[in-house]
Amino acid sequence: MLCPCAPELPWSFASPLVYPQETLMGKYGEEAKLIYELQDQGGELLALRYDLTVPFARYLAMNKITNIKRYHIAKVYRRDNPAMTRGRYREFYQCDFDIAGQFDPMIPDAECLKIVHEILSDLQLGDFLIKVNDRRILNGVFAVCGIPESKFITTCSTIDKLDKLPWEEVKNEMVGEEGLSPEAADRIGEYVQLHGEHCGVEPLASFLQAGQAGPVTQGCKQENAQGEEPVSVGSVAGGGRYDGLVGMFDPKGRKVPCVGVSIGIERIFSILEQRVKASGEKIRTTETQVLVATPQKHLVAARLKLISELWDAGIKAEMLYKKDPKLLKQLQYCEDTGIPLAAIVGEQELTDGVVKLRDVATREEVDIPREKLLEEIRRRLEP
Amino acid sequence: MLCPCAPELPWSFASPLVYPQETLMGKYGEEAKLIYELQDQGGELLALRYDLTVPFARYLAMNKITNIKRYHIAKVYRRDNPAMTRGRYREFYQCDFDIAGQFDPMIPDAECLKIVHEILSDLQLGDFLIKVNDRRILNGVFAVCGIPESKFITTCSTIDKLDKLPWEEVKNEMVGEEGLSPEAADRIGEYVQLHGEHCGVEPLASFLQAGQAGPVTQGCKQENAQGEEPVSVGSVAGGGRYDGLVGMFDPKGRKVPCVGVSIGIERIFSILEQRVKASGEKIRTTETQVLVATPQKHLVAARLKLISELWDAGIKAEMLYKKDPKLLKQLQYCEDTGIPLAAIVGEQELTDGVVKLRDVATREEVDIPREKLLEEIRRRLEP
Repeated sequence: MLCPCAPELPWSFASPLVYPQETLMGKYGEEAKLIYELQDQGGELLALRYDLTVPFARYLAMNKITNIKRYHIAKVYRRDNPAMTRGRYREFYQCDFDIAGQFDPMIPDAECLKIVHEILSDLQLGDFLIKVNDRRILNGVFAVCGIPESKFITTCSTIDKLDKLPWEEVKNEMVGEEGLSPEAADRIGEYVQLHGEHCGVEPLASFLQAGQAGPVTQGCKQENAQGEEPVSVGSVAGGGRYDGLVGMFDPKGRKVPCVGVSIGIERIFSILEQRVKASGEKIRTTETQVLVATPQKHLVAARLKLISELWDAGIKAEMLYKKDPKLLKQLQYCEDTGIPLAAIVGEQELTDGVVKLRDVATREEVDIPREKLLEEIRRRLEP
Repeated sequence: MLCPCAPELPWSFASPLVYPQETLMGKYGEEAKLIYELQDQGGELLALRYDLTVPFARYLAMNKITNIKRYHIAKVYRRDNPAMTRGRYREFYQCDFDIAGQFDPMIPDAECLKIVHEILSDLQLGDFLIKVNDRRILNGVFAVCGIPESKFITTCSTIDKLDKLPWEEVKNEMVGEEGLSPEAADRIGEYVQLHGEHCGVEPLASFLQAGQAGPVTQGCKQENAQGEEPVSVGSVAGGGRYDGLVGMFDPKGRKVPCVGVSIGIERIFSILEQRVKASGEKIRTTETQVLVATPQKHLVAARLKLISELWDAGIKAEMLYKKDPKLLKQLQYCEDTGIPLAAIVGEQELTDGVVKLRDVATREEVDIPREKLLEEIRRRLEP
């Protein structure tokens, strides 16, 4: 879960959290107003990491890395007004995957999409849609529609709102606020409302064929538990190329092409939480496989010896932190927390050289010779 | 690797990195001068997390958690002068394990020691020594030696220096700077220079018997590659009880007894790095098991299809991000990066429905029918 780094470098430098303010300046355009700026007790002007992309690009440039693939899950900071009811905080997690290097077109891009597809599928979030576009096509469309180049970026931001607003409102903004001619806006409208079934990106198509995946997509629709209309929850991932960013940090301006995706991990968690709540399903909060229990007093040493053996064998085991807990309390704990097996050692079991293995669900108990215990536990834990 | 938290709470609140300054005040004694204090652009007085213990205690108090066990690996901050040659930075990782709750004495404490023992053993750092003590014994020793209670804490800090200084210098400090009588200092000297072979902590002894572990210990000695004298590298872990800390954050002062250990993960990394350097051993930087390769042009789709299958089967696979890489280059990449297997699909293999599986070390190649490929790869990857 840590950003990798070249072994000859002090690894804690891979992606620091606190930067000199100037490092982050000029990298975020209009969003810069949300950078969390700070001054320390020595008067140094600092800023907290705003995302994971700019720190990654700076890291590549500083360490002259021209070829890397990595993921990074970490906190970022925004000086925004916290809106807790909407799950917006000043501190939150981002979860990024990026590929940097001079590679043949579209192969790393396709891998990024494949990974998003895999994550959203594996998490069983319901149906989702990945939208693929190429800014060069959009720029081409703008040029064909007669938009001056100076207005490309603002027009693009306005078009982004099509996710939330109907075309008419978007058009009004283009004409009213940005001063486009109504004819130009209408021409844009024809293009941006087109929807393609097929994706022209050859490596991507191969991936999707290989995975028998359906339409290509971004954003996520969640079907609720009652099987009613799918609920749209907005975008849960986004990404793209940033071929110029590393060059901004390199003294000689050397470029390293990059492509990456960011997974909206907190939004995904809130979808999963809603789903769990709606289903009434009980989610285990630990992965404990075996509770080591004793039925009589003065057996704490026997419990510790057994739990050590299980831990050494890689079995996830727990015991109550009481010297002489009641057996009933120990079994109740298994039921409350969903631990499937109890391994019970009492005086009789110690004498006989066995452990009583109890299936918590069926309450069936069998004496297992000590030397066969690990094998038997493993057998029962098999899926 | 994230701190767990109660599901009903916004999870990003579990252990924030930036705190109001007052939250951290009064928790660190003399060390407080190293807290990294900040003022944000709105004038709020903030501080960066100084360790993981105080945030953990605050989290328990705020969420009324009386019973939890967790580990947490994360960055902490010190406003110290960075000394990069000695591996000291303002930003570094801590790696903590803690057990909180009202439990029978010594059982959680013993588990903490067991875990330290396990970590240091598994990492094969060489011989190490865990020192176990009880502050109440030390306080008793001080009382017996006639030290006034007001001087317990400073005397204790001075005694801590015995790791680095000879007894005579420590004694001089006690007498000269702290104003203890030479007789009292000598009496302390008799006690603190005692070394016990046996550990009186019963659960701990059981654990260590169970694991056939040797002497009880803290700190780590590294044997260098030439088999010369062991090199002492100082302490790599530390810990203890902090039964009063949670109460400092609870409005009603409710206490939650806690015990924990902190692993000096960056120091351990530097020991491991030194060892690797000294041995000349080559460490793989990826876990890739299979390189998917093609021997002719125009086969990128075949590579993507095969790599998708491998990924879906949980096999760690990679391919070069080139449309038409030379076969030699692909095989060279395996040798350079230590990938043990290459799965090669060419025109002939596609026609025959096979994949050529190459053992990179022996250079032996065998055609495997497509439907048996996953099974064969798994068989070869078995340890």
